[in-house]
Amino acid sequence: MGRTMEVVGDSWTLLIVRDVLLGHRRFGELERTLGIPKNTLTSRLKTLVESGILEARPAGDGSAFLEYEPTQKGRALMPAILALRQWGRDYLGHSDSDPAVVDAKDGKPIARIEVHAQDGRVLGADDVRLVQPA
Amino acid sequence: MGRTMEVVGDSWTLLIVRDVLLGHRRFGELERTLGIPKNTLTSRLKTLVESGILEARPAGDGSAFLEYEPTQKGRALMPAILALRQWGRDYLGHSDSDPAVVDAKDGKPIARIEVHAQDGRVLGADDVRLVQPA
Repeated sequence: MGRTMEVVGDSWTLLIVRDVLLGHRRFGELERTLGIPKNTLTSRLKTLVESGILEARPAGDGSAFLEYEPTQKGRALMPAILALRQWGRDYLGHSDSDPAVVDAKDGKPIARIEVHAQDGRVLGADDVRLVQPA
Repeated sequence: MGRTMEVVGDSWTLLIVRDVLLGHRRFGELERTLGIPKNTLTSRLKTLVESGILEARPAGDGSAFLEYEPTQKGRALMPAILALRQWGRDYLGHSDSDPAVVDAKDGKPIARIEVHAQDGRVLGADDVRLVQPA
């Protein structure tokens, strides 16, 4: 996980990926929704493209804008991002004006992100342990 | 999630919480397993205690050492930490010498961390959307 944190460990990085995953695709949109300094956003987007988490491509509307799309590697960060979001809402508080994350098919809020055993039991932090390979 | 990243967004912070959750409780152990500079570890532990994620208490063995224990708030980071670890193993590679995370009860590797709908369907990144409150 040390390498994971080298790639996504900057506090802006996961926020940018979250916003791209959730539909903000353009520099100006990201700048506005995140309130991030322009030069910080530029450098984080460059790193995210170099890491293969986002792709930059010309906007579909024929304008000169670039759009940032998540790659498969970027989309695979969704469980981690939603688990961090859930923790923040549980322990740092949330407001009624926060957007909800819903199942696109039926519009219902997603289930809580939990750790499960192979047989489906929910595992708490005290129910898992780390085993060194033999 | 902006506030979440303020609390846990430093690249060392989640690594320290991971190691404490997985059983490393003392300064010297954390310093050794993480290869983190002493002054960085000191300041991150201080922040984690102030944020209510870890508690410092005298070691159970009567020595002068402090032990860091995760609080409920700290233990609740487990799904996010395991989801980030899973992503790193999937996309940044892993080695046979990496420890495995297992169910303490039966010793089997835990299930993959996934996003689920309320009816149990696994949701990919394209199956969820963000809805602004009305």
